Amino acid sequence: MHAPEALAHQKFAELLALTRQPFPASRKAYLEGALHPGLRVPVRDIALTNGEVVSVYDTSGPYTDPAVAIDVRRGLPGLRDAWIAQRGDTAFYAGREHAAPDDGGGADARIAQLRLEAAALQRQPRRAKRTNGAGGNVTQMHYARQGIVTPEMEYVAIRENGRRAWMARYQADAAREQRLAGNPMGASIPRAITPEFVRDEVARGRAIIPANINHPEVEPMAIGRNFRVKINANIGNSAVTSSIEEEVEKLVWAIRWGADNVMDLSTGRNIHTTRDWIVRNSPVPIGTVPIYQALEKVGGVAEDLTWEIFRDTLVEQAEQGVDYFTIHAGVRLPFIPMTVNRVTGIVSRGGSIMAKWCIAHHRESFIYEHFEDICDIMKAYDVSFSLGDGLRPGSGADANDEAQFAELRTLGELTQVAWKHDVQTMIEGPGHVPMHMVQANMDEQLKHCHEAPFYTLGPLTIDIAPGYDHIASAIGAAMIGWFGTAMLCYVTPKEHLGLPDRDDVKQGIIAYKIAAHAADIAKGHPGARARDDAISQARFDFRWEDQFNLGLDPDTARAFHDETLPKDAAKVAHFCSMCGPKFCSMKITQEVRDYAAQQGMPGGAEAALQAGMREKSVEFRRRGGALYVPLTPEP
Amino acid sequence: MHAPEALAHQKFAELLALTRQPFPASRKAYLEGALHPGLRVPVRDIALTNGEVVSVYDTSGPYTDPAVAIDVRRGLPGLRDAWIAQRGDTAFYAGREHAAPDDGGGADARIAQLRLEAAALQRQPRRAKRTNGAGGNVTQMHYARQGIVTPEMEYVAIRENGRRAWMARYQADAAREQRLAGNPMGASIPRAITPEFVRDEVARGRAIIPANINHPEVEPMAIGRNFRVKINANIGNSAVTSSIEEEVEKLVWAIRWGADNVMDLSTGRNIHTTRDWIVRNSPVPIGTVPIYQALEKVGGVAEDLTWEIFRDTLVEQAEQGVDYFTIHAGVRLPFIPMTVNRVTGIVSRGGSIMAKWCIAHHRESFIYEHFEDICDIMKAYDVSFSLGDGLRPGSGADANDEAQFAELRTLGELTQVAWKHDVQTMIEGPGHVPMHMVQANMDEQLKHCHEAPFYTLGPLTIDIAPGYDHIASAIGAAMIGWFGTAMLCYVTPKEHLGLPDRDDVKQGIIAYKIAAHAADIAKGHPGARARDDAISQARFDFRWEDQFNLGLDPDTARAFHDETLPKDAAKVAHFCSMCGPKFCSMKITQEVRDYAAQQGMPGGAEAALQAGMREKSVEFRRRGGALYVPLTPEP
Repeated sequence: MHAPEALAHQKFAELLALTRQPFPASRKAYLEGALHPGLRVPVRDIALTNGEVVSVYDTSGPYTDPAVAIDVRRGLPGLRDAWIAQRGDTAFYAGREHAAPDDGGGADARIAQLRLEAAALQRQPRRAKRTNGAGGNVTQMHYARQGIVTPEMEYVAIRENGRRAWMARYQADAAREQRLAGNPMGASIPRAITPEFVRDEVARGRAIIPANINHPEVEPMAIGRNFRVKINANIGNSAVTSSIEEEVEKLVWAIRWGADNVMDLSTGRNIHTTRDWIVRNSPVPIGTVPIYQALEKVGGVAEDLTWEIFRDTLVEQAEQGVDYFTIHAGVRLPFIPMTVNRVTGIVSRGGSIMAKWCIAHHRESFIYEHFEDICDIMKAYDVSFSLGDGLRPGSGADANDEAQFAELRTLGELTQVAWKHDVQTMIEGPGHVPMHMVQANMDEQLKHCHEAPFYTLGPLTIDIAPGYDHIASAIGAAMIGWFGTAMLCYVTPKEHLGLPDRDDVKQGIIAYKIAAHAADIAKGHPGARARDDAISQARFDFRWEDQFNLGLDPDTARAFHDETLPKDAAKVAHFCSMCGPKFCSMKITQEVRDYAAQQGMPGGAEAALQAGMREKSVEFRRRGGALYVPLTPEP
Repeated sequence: MHAPEALAHQKFAELLALTRQPFPASRKAYLEGALHPGLRVPVRDIALTNGEVVSVYDTSGPYTDPAVAIDVRRGLPGLRDAWIAQRGDTAFYAGREHAAPDDGGGADARIAQLRLEAAALQRQPRRAKRTNGAGGNVTQMHYARQGIVTPEMEYVAIRENGRRAWMARYQADAAREQRLAGNPMGASIPRAITPEFVRDEVARGRAIIPANINHPEVEPMAIGRNFRVKINANIGNSAVTSSIEEEVEKLVWAIRWGADNVMDLSTGRNIHTTRDWIVRNSPVPIGTVPIYQALEKVGGVAEDLTWEIFRDTLVEQAEQGVDYFTIHAGVRLPFIPMTVNRVTGIVSRGGSIMAKWCIAHHRESFIYEHFEDICDIMKAYDVSFSLGDGLRPGSGADANDEAQFAELRTLGELTQVAWKHDVQTMIEGPGHVPMHMVQANMDEQLKHCHEAPFYTLGPLTIDIAPGYDHIASAIGAAMIGWFGTAMLCYVTPKEHLGLPDRDDVKQGIIAYKIAAHAADIAKGHPGARARDDAISQARFDFRWEDQFNLGLDPDTARAFHDETLPKDAAKVAHFCSMCGPKFCSMKITQEVRDYAAQQGMPGGAEAALQAGMREKSVEFRRRGGALYVPLTPEP
């Protein structure tokens, strides 16, 4: 088989199978609850060659646990089933009838067959019971405000802490800890997260736990400025689906590399059915933009949208278990003219659909007008709002303009309305923003949206990097994450150019894991820096395997290293390819250190150096003699 | 030919030929001087499909000018020859004898032959004439302080301004200009750069123009906080050189993608000869780390280094035309113990060589002690100092520590010494620094180094991204560039893992062009933002060709686009692959805009909307009817 054929074969096989290998030297482990003894909260334990174990936050779900049998036609186990049932405030009901427009109309024999094969994914939906004649409320915020610490909240607390004992060896130096202390920029991050802290954050609206009662498979996680910065990846359906595995693999691939949330932005045909496959197999919260599907139902004619069709779509997706909806409720009729002189007008799809509807009917947005009706749906299923920024800037030139901030203030007003209903809410943000204008976005959001979590797309700091917008935006994302943004929506290298493929998705996720982690360290998240210290120590000790395995992408790190020094021996060698075996700055430092230790110098003691080194210098010269036999660098 | 063979063939061919194609739709043009009429300052003019011309800063030298005949065996024309000669303060002299150790010892028949073939690259060196019995001074700083505006200074002024007339159409909106006004963070960037401004910046040490009198081929450029942020790329010699073209192509490739400076970090054999090839063919300043070559001359034994060998190496490289030397003069004996408790000790190669020398001899650094002797060499050739940060942190854990800042303060003292001799000086900076600690680096540097240009390596904001350190560091680089750093040394994806190949070099450069441009926009550089506005306008207008050609890497942008929509027709289509031909948010915005224009609305006028739209809404619905027929997104 020639190479291209082999590659094509491999790609096909990849799509038909789920990526289930654990990360190198890694083992999935579970931490247990105290308030709620049944909890099993996942972490990834990385075994180092020096015997240490470094434990990290794990978004990858059961797919990286070899002990779990996965059948995408049956879906993941419903780990929250019992918690939801025990609350006694929900009931199963028939649910709405599946209708042809739900799948974009038209028949697809292959999908029909897959739908049949996966009949076990069809679930009867739950809904809040009516209480006192009114619709019930089953949101985490509703419980939190009653002082109830749910299993979801304890789960989140354990997950945010992770294992911490191993970190102690990297935090022993008090002077270093003080020097490196983060700058929380107004955040209030405790040393350890308690379940009560989570409850309080959710109650005051500063964090959300997206967890639809119809998505019991979700491993609860929190989005809020006092928690780790999270990232979202977008996926969508294929033109021609060859298997359920193919669609689920997109999700599995995204969470493998660290997506905390996934948005399903599918369009066209089979989207209802595909969504069933995704949600039933997803351990992370799933978000959608319901207006996309509503538009499908009216044949793509924005003017034909109605509240009834939109409402029906919200119920349809809430019954399926979608955890948060992007709702462009802030695109109000009076704001539309504010975009007229922009360089790039309205670039949000949802925003432009609503703008078109508003000007076609010359009416205020039906979403804005029915916002409280939407709250009634959200609280019956615990769907969280992601209030969309339909007027976000599409270029640096349009950043922070009148239209953008008018919408943001409206989203702040709507946050108060949602909170009146105890509906969990986060706020979407831009977009394209030059570096020096990033902080104003966070400041305005905090001021007008009352600390509801901010969820930004980048922002991209420049416009001239098509093909590299994951980098142009990771700069803005890292900064706004530090300033207080709770979740960063990724941007892939294909942004503005085309649809991302598998590798683009990975590139986007890794760039955003970098941004989120940089933000966590800058904020001073107490669980963030130890992993950096561990990899730095491994780097200094020439523990190559550990350096690869502690990185965000062990596969790539190993492959890059092996391009220059492919031999296994090089992985334990006390040198790297940059300076070669006989000369190395890290090696010299170790000699400096050994020498200092021989002299009994604790460091920083010039006097000791003066005293101790004179007589040793001749001996050192004799012993040392590091020969510089470099490997030959290529540029 | 099977694919891998084809690839290997292509790679080989690439190395033997220089990349000389102009950028797509681009034409090299030259701006003329006024004070010095002979000046021809290059710009790249990009012709857009709508008839506009966008003109950008051009680092690529004569290689992208089809009108210039290139012969790497003869070198580039010496555009500064006449300027240098006319000053009358230099004289040719014999120069030191080439010695075997200059090329790392040992004979290489192939190199000997290439050296013979390229005998025309051997030039007689110039040196400052002695005046009043003392060594002369031919630095740009020396001239500047006497009030002389050299051709180099006028060249820089013209180059920093570039063409500006085309920008006017993007700056017509005063309200937008005010909203987007940069935050210079203490910089003083004029609307237009005059030759006198350049002179003043060089005189006060706030900018340098690296331009050795023995490198007349250089196209002068400035490094200073009140100019565009510059980037540096590193290259090195090959193990087995097949041709001069192969070595020169590394340089040509780096400047093609935007390297403003190139450091030649060659080691081992043939480095003197390779350096001749590089310098004679380089239109950008070349920097080196002379201690590397000095170490070669003593067989790699750091302890055997002497001032005499180091001095000889400085003279050797100054005669060849190296424009700036990294000199680790701040690695002083008393600072070495301060590194003992670091996580990653001393990671700078130059720093660790000097640390080893100091502790082996138990003596103060000979570089520090001979600093004024070095100044005498620098001013005789106009070599600029790049005062190396040999104690920079190699991990976030070591950032901003006692050792780092002790060295920085010493570099500040040495800057004063260098300036006493009118020697141009910049200061090197870290390294690995968490985001919230980046600004302190700039603040300390400004405070202690008196606004001498800062030249940082990244900094990397996290340690856990091996394979992606160009991204982890671009975040820190963009921020510190905004804060005032004048030049950013690039980091490639191979950092910490191996030697970068051709594509890694490009990836590193593009990441750093993004960082530098983001910084220029944030600082409010008056020539920075118009290119973003032009590409944003092209994006909004669906001028795909222009969008590619205005980007930092047109080839990649085009290739990414063509993966999804390869047909030529798609390049003029009013849609992209994200939403498909019949629905598009940008298209809808255009409709909104057309509608507003019909109504005579200048934007922002709600009343006009209210009045004008009611009767039009039926007509709009009839006309509009955008059908949503999406292409099917892949994740």
